[in-house]
Amino acid sequence: MNEFELIARYFNRPAKRAILGVGDDAALLAPEPIRQLAVSADMLVEGRHFFPDVDPEALGHKALAVNLSDLAAMGAEPSWCTLSLALPCVDEAWLAAFARGFHALADEAGIELVGGDTTRGPLTIAVQVAGTVPAGQALLRSGGTPGDDVWVSGALGAAAAAVAVRNGDAALSGEAMAACLSRLDRPTPRLALGLALRGIASAALDISDGLLADLGHIGERSACGAELDWADIPAHPALAGLPEAVLRQAVLAGGDDYELCFTAPAQHRSRLQALSQTLALPLSRIGRLVGGQGVRVFNAGERITPSRAGFDHFAT
Amino acid sequence: MNEFELIARYFNRPAKRAILGVGDDAALLAPEPIRQLAVSADMLVEGRHFFPDVDPEALGHKALAVNLSDLAAMGAEPSWCTLSLALPCVDEAWLAAFARGFHALADEAGIELVGGDTTRGPLTIAVQVAGTVPAGQALLRSGGTPGDDVWVSGALGAAAAAVAVRNGDAALSGEAMAACLSRLDRPTPRLALGLALRGIASAALDISDGLLADLGHIGERSACGAELDWADIPAHPALAGLPEAVLRQAVLAGGDDYELCFTAPAQHRSRLQALSQTLALPLSRIGRLVGGQGVRVFNAGERITPSRAGFDHFAT
Repeated sequence: MNEFELIARYFNRPAKRAILGVGDDAALLAPEPIRQLAVSADMLVEGRHFFPDVDPEALGHKALAVNLSDLAAMGAEPSWCTLSLALPCVDEAWLAAFARGFHALADEAGIELVGGDTTRGPLTIAVQVAGTVPAGQALLRSGGTPGDDVWVSGALGAAAAAVAVRNGDAALSGEAMAACLSRLDRPTPRLALGLALRGIASAALDISDGLLADLGHIGERSACGAELDWADIPAHPALAGLPEAVLRQAVLAGGDDYELCFTAPAQHRSRLQALSQTLALPLSRIGRLVGGQGVRVFNAGERITPSRAGFDHFAT
Repeated sequence: MNEFELIARYFNRPAKRAILGVGDDAALLAPEPIRQLAVSADMLVEGRHFFPDVDPEALGHKALAVNLSDLAAMGAEPSWCTLSLALPCVDEAWLAAFARGFHALADEAGIELVGGDTTRGPLTIAVQVAGTVPAGQALLRSGGTPGDDVWVSGALGAAAAAVAVRNGDAALSGEAMAACLSRLDRPTPRLALGLALRGIASAALDISDGLLADLGHIGERSACGAELDWADIPAHPALAGLPEAVLRQAVLAGGDDYELCFTAPAQHRSRLQALSQTLALPLSRIGRLVGGQGVRVFNAGERITPSRAGFDHFAT
């Protein structure tokens, strides 16, 4: 199988919304005139973002999911994506599974793969996504105000706990580990939540590096600090058996959860509770934005700090 | 230096045309409503697309240039790009040079870096570009008709000759090798030519895999064959000292030249000659599209074939 056959077999599907899809020098797209395009790119590297033995179907899902999560965090509707793939060799079973995972999520999210590149090299997956949002309605990091509530979707820490167990730094029962691995390998981009938060959230982002580090970005951009109540932060139930220090580290500083963290004025509390019901997705109010800077977490009035605030690819 | 400092120092420049540039979950872009977006992505891998000792400034240039070349081949005006970068370590001198090369070409081409990703990993560079083109005016591969002339810009074979010499498969004088290396390391995307070809070219693409292979794509998409005259195909002058077989291989099947190959009705010959003057860029008429399929090259009436038609990353 050569490069062109590979693309044709696994990645070339008929264009739906694109004017011209895979197969020319570039794809041609016609965005709706009154909307803005939200564009983001994320790259996954073997041994860094996923274990070498990861299920390729889950990897195809995750490579797209982490990018869709950025569109969710902007309140954008997914429209088009590109996929650049470096592969050590052509393994047809692997490729078929990877493509199946990628396309299944693409279909579910309504995003169209319009182009990309394949080459030989250490397994690396670079995805770029574009979505549309009505002008002025994107959820930025910069709109928070002291007094706004801080919220998170879902539950935190499961992905980081799975990594800790895989690395031998923690232990979990088989069932709990399976639940955590599923969150690590098949994160759910919170697209419906992102769309629903337009007009409600004052600031939003997705938690990819860890709650404290990511909420810190909202703080910096919004020129605010934040105070969180440990008791209100939703730890994933599978983490119940972990020692307190490991659990705090996973919940506060674990990356890869891809839940949304957002801020909203207190007047929207009941709308958000109703939205949580509608989406069948827990939304937890975990604290508030305050004046000053920095994110502080309190447990029964005492400040707690994890040993590391978040993930940094170049930390030494 | 951590991941965020790295981005801030080397890649975060104030947004010009973007509504929102680097720093949020996604960039926000507002395309002009009556134009279409052309979108393309190319990935470069160390040891595959460039030698490990390549000048990082040239690499920054090339990573963007090969992507801009796809926009040129569509007749699109560059608008926005993203950059995903896997780095084995943080080498500030290397990064500064890479960023300098990337930004210098971005400024020259009028394209804005609006987002991306950095991670640790084997050196891999994934760029995605978007450009705009008036609806219906993009240069596709599918518009060629039997009888159309086949043209190429510039001169061919220099990049492939440089690779052949580096691999010990050929020898060139120091001066000739310098000329070839400059074409390999710092290709020039033919953006002005691409724009000027709107309304003239019936089909176009950029030569990244080799003339015969790439013209073959026009043939497939346009349901044509092609016949070329070897004497009319412009070999780069630095190749003069090479054995005939090596020279033919480089000119007909060498990738990485990033010249444009396009087809046009014979009525446009004088316009194209005038355009060549205006752009100070040689445009050579090298043959014609014919009925049937396949690309054939004739030298004084005799058919010649290179030993390999073009580059395939997964050829065995």
